[in-house]
Order: sequence, then C-alpha cells, then structure tokens
Amino acid sequence: MAALTGAESLVETFLAEGVNLCFANPGTSEMHFVAALDSHPDMRCVLCLFEGGASGAADGYFRMSGKVAATMFHLAPGFGNAFANLHNARKAGSGMVNVMGEHARHHLAYDSPLKGDTAGISGTISHWTRTVTDASSVARDGAEAVAAARGGNGRLATLILPADTAWGEGAAAETGTVSAKECPSEEDILAAVRALKTPNTAMLIGGEAAYGEGLRRAGGIAEKAGARLIAPLFVSRLERGVGTPLVEQLPYAGDLAGDMLQGLETIVCVGAKPPVNFFAYPGKPSLPTDPGCKVVELCTPDMNADYTLDALADALESTQPTLLRDLAIPDAPPDGPLSAESACTVISRWIPEGAIVVNEAITSGRTFSAQSVGARRHDLLNGAIGGAIGGGLPVALGASIACPDRPVLALIGDGSAMYTLQVLWTMARERLNVTAVIFANRTYNILHQELAAMGAGAPGRNAQRMFDLNDPSLDWVKLAEGHGVRGTRVETVRSLEKALDETAKTSGPSLIEVVL
Amino acid sequence: MAALTGAESLVETFLAEGVNLCFANPGTSEMHFVAALDSHPDMRCVLCLFEGGASGAADGYFRMSGKVAATMFHLAPGFGNAFANLHNARKAGSGMVNVMGEHARHHLAYDSPLKGDTAGISGTISHWTRTVTDASSVARDGAEAVAAARGGNGRLATLILPADTAWGEGAAAETGTVSAKECPSEEDILAAVRALKTPNTAMLIGGEAAYGEGLRRAGGIAEKAGARLIAPLFVSRLERGVGTPLVEQLPYAGDLAGDMLQGLETIVCVGAKPPVNFFAYPGKPSLPTDPGCKVVELCTPDMNADYTLDALADALESTQPTLLRDLAIPDAPPDGPLSAESACTVISRWIPEGAIVVNEAITSGRTFSAQSVGARRHDLLNGAIGGAIGGGLPVALGASIACPDRPVLALIGDGSAMYTLQVLWTMARERLNVTAVIFANRTYNILHQELAAMGAGAPGRNAQRMFDLNDPSLDWVKLAEGHGVRGTRVETVRSLEKALDETAKTSGPSLIEVVL
Repeated sequence: MAALTGAESLVETFLAEGVNLCFANPGTSEMHFVAALDSHPDMRCVLCLFEGGASGAADGYFRMSGKVAATMFHLAPGFGNAFANLHNARKAGSGMVNVMGEHARHHLAYDSPLKGDTAGISGTISHWTRTVTDASSVARDGAEAVAAARGGNGRLATLILPADTAWGEGAAAETGTVSAKECPSEEDILAAVRALKTPNTAMLIGGEAAYGEGLRRAGGIAEKAGARLIAPLFVSRLERGVGTPLVEQLPYAGDLAGDMLQGLETIVCVGAKPPVNFFAYPGKPSLPTDPGCKVVELCTPDMNADYTLDALADALESTQPTLLRDLAIPDAPPDGPLSAESACTVISRWIPEGAIVVNEAITSGRTFSAQSVGARRHDLLNGAIGGAIGGGLPVALGASIACPDRPVLALIGDGSAMYTLQVLWTMARERLNVTAVIFANRTYNILHQELAAMGAGAPGRNAQRMFDLNDPSLDWVKLAEGHGVRGTRVETVRSLEKALDETAKTSGPSLIEVVL
Repeated sequence: MAALTGAESLVETFLAEGVNLCFANPGTSEMHFVAALDSHPDMRCVLCLFEGGASGAADGYFRMSGKVAATMFHLAPGFGNAFANLHNARKAGSGMVNVMGEHARHHLAYDSPLKGDTAGISGTISHWTRTVTDASSVARDGAEAVAAARGGNGRLATLILPADTAWGEGAAAETGTVSAKECPSEEDILAAVRALKTPNTAMLIGGEAAYGEGLRRAGGIAEKAGARLIAPLFVSRLERGVGTPLVEQLPYAGDLAGDMLQGLETIVCVGAKPPVNFFAYPGKPSLPTDPGCKVVELCTPDMNADYTLDALADALESTQPTLLRDLAIPDAPPDGPLSAESACTVISRWIPEGAIVVNEAITSGRTFSAQSVGARRHDLLNGAIGGAIGGGLPVALGASIACPDRPVLALIGDGSAMYTLQVLWTMARERLNVTAVIFANRTYNILHQELAAMGAGAPGRNAQRMFDLNDPSLDWVKLAEGHGVRGTRVETVRSLEKALDETAKTSGPSLIEVVL
C-alpha cells in the first residue's frame, strides 16, 4: 500500500471521527488537502465563495446537528475573512475544526506575499490552535483538533497545516479523546434548588437547556420551583411555539431588559451566561439586573447542562411541564403597504411546523419574537449572536444542511445580508430549502436609533451617508437572481403572504425582498 | 466654547493633519465618532457595505495619492472583515489610520456579545496599535497614529477607541511628527554603484522607484550602468506604456521567474523586497534567483527611495533615460468568441491615456502584462498584492477617489470579484469612473492549474465542486445591476470593443462580464 500523505491522514482521521462535511475556500497552499478530499468522496465538500460563509455555515450546522464540521481557509487572510463569523460561532458555543493552510516551513524564511501571522490571528479567536510540525503527526494533531472542537459544548479548534506537512508522509488515522464536561457539585445543585424555590427567582437558560428534552426538563423544574424561565435574546437555538414551556426572552434594549428583570432577587444560569447589556451608554448601567440581584452561574455554557438539569429535576422531583404555550397565531393584518411589524405578523402566521427560523433583522425583526411566541413549533437561531452582522445567511445555510427536511426561514436586514450575500450561491448549488426574507428598509436603522438616543438631533450629511443604503437602492431580486436564487419583491401584506406560500410549493432557495 | 468630546478631538486632529477622507463601516460603539464626523462636513465619509471594501479602498487611495485615509471598523469582528485587505495593504506598503471601536472600558468587565480581542487581532497585522486610555489623550493618540501611518513609506496604524474615551471630554487637536525615513549609507551607495556597473546585474524596483520621476531616474541609472530594470509582478504601482523606461516584470510561476533571472549575478533592490516565489512546491526552490546571485537590499520598501535614487544618479552622473518604450498597440484580434488572451488584447488596445489599471485576473489576466507593455501610458496596480483575493475592486474604488479625473479599469477574475462585490454599490453611489471587467471563466482556474501541476490527474467530484463556480453560473449583469451599476455581457471580440467604447461615453461605473 502506498504511503499516505499527511493531508490524506488528516482526511482519514476526520472520517474516522465522523467529521464528514467540509465548508471550504481552498487555495494553492491547501492543494494536497484538496487532493486528499478528492480521493475520499464520502467527505462532503461545500464550496463557499467567501470564507465568512464557511465559518457561519459550520456554526449553523453545529447548532442544529450538534456535530462538528471542518472548514478550510487559505492562510491568514482566509482566516481573517472567516473571523467575524468565527466570533459569532464562539459566542454561540459552536464547535468546528478549522484547517488553515500555511506555507511549507522552509518557505517561511522568506517574506512571500501570503506570509502572515497564522497562529497569531487564530489565537485571537480560537480556543485551541496548533501548527503541525511534522507530516507524521498530522493524524494525531487532527484527532486532537476534533477532540478539542468537541470539548465543553463545542469549541473552535484550528489546525494550521504547513504545505510540507500536507505533502510529506503521514501516519495512520487516529481518534482522539474528548475530555468530560464539568458538572456542578452536589452542594451547588442543592443551593440552586433552594434558590429556585424562593420568590422572585428565574432560571436563565441556553445551550441544551433551550431546546428538546433539555428545554422540557427546564420547564418542569421552573414550574415545580415556581421560578420564571428566561432565555437571552442572543440565543444559539431556542425551541418555541405551541406546546413548548413558557419562556420569556430578553429584549435588546438595556432599559427594557432591566424592566423584565426588575424585582428578580436570584437568577440561576443553566447553559447561559449572566445577562449583560449589549453596549454601554453614558450614565447607564452595564447590567440589566437589579443591583442586589444574585446571579448564580450553576452551569456555564461550557459545562454539562444535561447532568445539571437531571440533578435539579431529581432534587426537586419535577416532571414534564404542564404549563405549555397554546397555539396563538396573530390575526392577519389588513392588506396594504408592509411595515416591519406587519411583515413579522405575516411571517409568524406562516411559519410551518418544524421550521428553523434564523433572525438577523436587527430592527425590523424586533417584534418577531413576541408575535411568534405561540406560532407553530420552530427553532429560533439568532443570526448575529456575537453582534457581528453577516451571520444570518451563513447560519441558515449550515442549518439547512444539518436538517435538509426542515424548512429554513432566514429573516435578515438588508444591511446585514450585504455582508455575506455570496452565501446565496451556495444555497442554490446545494438546492437548499431556505427562504431568505430581506427587510429592505434601505438603512442601518439601528444606527439611526442609536444616534437619536444620543440626543444628537437630526443626522447631517455625513451621518446620513454612513447610515443609509440608498442612492442607489439595492435591487435584491437581481442580487438573488445573480446568485442563481429565485427572487421576488413584495410591498404589500397580501403579496408577502402569496410569496411565502409560493416558496412552500417549490424546491430550492428563494429570496423575498420586503420593501419597507 | 463647549468642551470637545474625545471623538471630536480625533476628527479635528485628523483634519489638522490633512486626513480628510474616511472609509467607514460604523456601528453603535462608534456612534460618538459618527456624531463628530457629522459635525465636520469637510471630512468626506465614504460608506462601504463590508469592511474589506473600506480597507482595500484606503490601500488604493494611498497607492495613487500617497495620502493616508482613515477607516472606521466596528470592534474585533469589523476589523476581522477588513483583515484580508489590510494584509494586501501591508504588502503594498500603503499607509492608513484605522479607527477601531471598542466597548467603554467599564463594560469590558462583562462578557457581552461583541467583546473580543481588539488589540490582539490588530497586533497580528498592524505596524502600530494603541488602545486609548483616556478621553483627554485621544487627540495626542490620534496625531501619533497619523504619524505612524506616515512612517517609512506608509504603514498600518490602528487606534482602538473605547466608547467612553469617545464620549468623554477631549483635548485640543494635535499634530504629530513623522520620523525621518532611513537612508542607505554613502558606502552602501558606492558599493551598489560598483555592483550595478558589473555585467549581469539588475535593479529591482518598487515603491517610488516604480512610477513618476522616481521611475525615470531609475531608468536613467540602469541605462548609464548597463543594468537591467525589473519590477515584481505583485507591484503596488508601476507606470507603464509608451514613453516609460524599459522595465521587465517578473512572471507568476517560479520556473518562469527563474528563467527571467537566470544568469544574474547581482540584484540591487530599490524600494522592493528580494524576489521570492509565491508558494513552495515539493522539490522546487523557494527563490527564483540563481543560487550564487547576490541580492543587495540597498533601499528596503520602508526606506527613502527618493534619496537613494538621487544618490545613485549623482554617483553615476546619470540623467534621464533615453531608452523608452515605443508605442506598441497589439493588432486587433479577429472577431469571434473571446478567450482570456484575446480579451486582454482588446483591453490593451483600448487603454486610454492616463488610465489606472488594476489587475486581479489571476489566470485570465496573465498575458495582459506583456500585451500592454507598449500601450498608452497607464499605472498598473496589482489587486491581490498580498495574495488575498478580493483586493481588486476595493483598490479600484480607492484609486478612483484619489484620481477622479483618470479612468480606472479593473480586470478581475470572477472568483476574486465575488469576495468583495459589495464595493460595486459604493462605486455607484460615489459616481466613480470605474470600468470593472469580470473574466467569467466560472472557475478558480488557478487551482485547476495547481492540481494539474501536482500530477494528481483529472479532478474528481470533490475537487470540481471546490474549484468550479458553475451549477449555477453567476450572472454578473444582474449582480452589477443589483448594486446599481450598469452591466453588459460580452462573448465576442467585437462586442467587448463596443462595450469598452460605451463606458467611455457614459459617466459612473460600468461592469462588463467577459464570458470565457
């Protein structure tokens, strides 16, 4: 048998580990890795035309499947292009294995055009970074990278693969050992149970506690203890709609979040981080919680939520929740020109059972959460969970690949959608059942709101030129069609309803431009 | 008089320094900087819909104007989006001042969604990074940032501006002191002169030695000494065409570069780095130079090329060159379907006097350099000078803002153009005289060539899926029109000629999709 190259040993290690999907933007330095992928057709390679699409897709794939995908990036600049959605993925707690190409080590003696600080940039965002030092260790390093990506509840692992270690002689495929997740102590569990039973207490949930069996157990625990159940706005995945436990969701504005949390004396975090306001403002607090509120980090996002919920349920003798969300479809708005709110009403009414909804309509989608709380059952993924816009379309891509039989609805502001619009092409190529609704208000509306909140008065020419996406207006139908995706423009309530119904009748991706 | 905010003191400092252009992607944490820009209408703010457009535009602006522009990025993810074109700008030797927003310092105690390693990611690419620690020092820090960006022949300076230092009370505007550029010693000059006079010697030029008066002096020096004059392929700015000194330009492939440099015993670098092959390959050398070739780094890209050329000219008593490029317009190809080569012939014939040509057609534009060597006078800018594709359209944007009266022609491969296509919108909004020619071969052709060079045989499904931009094809006319830019598709020689002539008759940007 011919010897493996290092790159082949990496692909075989990935496949042995069950990592069989790679979101890729290859370049010349990754050519041996490409050749190795090419000789292993059981590895699915999904091309993105920009690396931010690949990193965001791996994020969305992990959120819906719990499985680690590989990515492929071309040296430091390729990793840089992926950075913003790696940031979002890190905040979402998603795991992935990034393979970053690097020059052959002897070539690094010279200042060639692509030479850059590969380990440095990875270190600013990855939980785990390793530069391979020998072809024979690629398999071992790859297995450890996968194990690192599966650590906690999902981490960013980056393996830097110098070209000579990819083309040199590799060793046999390996498998790694994932370290066990940390669990809270029995004392911490009992203390949390006592806290949950006191009045004015809430459980703040994230990770596995926010969907599926975890969410149901969390609902049972909260119900038995008489505690409120709250989820962050910037949530990786939250199961919602009819039949789900009663979860409140924090609003964006710190003042409103403060109102929601007012009077709470204790918050027990399970799979979620302590609540914090998105930005600081002059003279306003950083935290939405009352000054005296005690925040108990029982189970951080990195710890074992499954164990924690079991232990809480055992201690409380709680069962499945009985207080569940009733079906509450909002009334149809009268026909007429669309507003953001009426568009969200139409969408909330339309959501099909089992849909995955990605929300990155920063201002236009703000009413969506309340309007859709009693909609048909769906998972809601925040598209810009780390505040880096351009996450929504890639997350929708990855979620659809994870769940090809579930309809995916991406609600994206036009400003956000422009960041990673190349993803539309990959949706078309992979024939994904994604409906992208673009809220075309032709402005970074959040910035208008923020400037107004500063009391700065009406924006002048410079602010308008930086906030408004007009002159010229973007034509989203043409942008969609340019990427090979069906596009429709709607301006009225009835036409949005009709366009949504149309997407259900056809396969492959569609884009609906909602003109506001 | 009301006290200045820190942000206002920064804008006034920039204006006092003559920095009056800002390529911006603002976010909430930059809102006080936005308000300050808004109250200073003499600062021109150019909105890009993706940060890679802004960093690339600042690069192109510097290359053609020699002036430092400001950029505005939204925390670490915004900087990450800018990273790839910051990498290109660094390799081009371009100066810019990046203003990176950051949370108010008291907010950094909490793990909010956008918290990230702002200083860390800047440190992996910027020459100079500083996080402001006090509102009263913003003006001083800003002045030092501008001075740092003007250091050498242009550097990347990044000022991280925590929101509280932007909204706190600032001090009066400042001006900074640019440190003097390093000059070669008299001994080094004399040694270089002796070397240039020996047979089999070349002068490798870059920076100020590659255009304008610098290029003419370099031509005179080479002619007097009997040395060859060579420029890298990946050149920041090279003046070419009729009436310019006889400069050879290195090819991309290491083998061909080796052929060009074969027999050279000495290379004297003035404003250029020693030649190095782009990538390493198994069993091939990293350097294109003969093993015995002596490479003299007389004047690195960071040093004083102006002084160096003067000193060399004085020592050689050289004058203006007499060996100048004759007008040599290639013959018109016969009508018929376009090939990459015939398209480059048509373009070489068409280039108007004084044009700025940005080349980022990695494979399709490979013959352009030779075909256009005797074209009408133009400046040639390499669009992916650091090997990070997606630089070309942004560089064209910045070059056009620097030189609004000169036609700009951007030759971009479809794979490259997809990386930063959002820039088309900014070209439309700013009414720039840019013609973007997209070579639509619907593939990353360079990767096909590299895989073939490995002897890997015909690509299989995975390689094809990662190399080919088909299924579906991109429609560049719709992509252009979606961004508000006129689009035309051409498939024949005559139709390309006609489309180019058409762009000269109309104002504002155009895109021509050359179907290959």
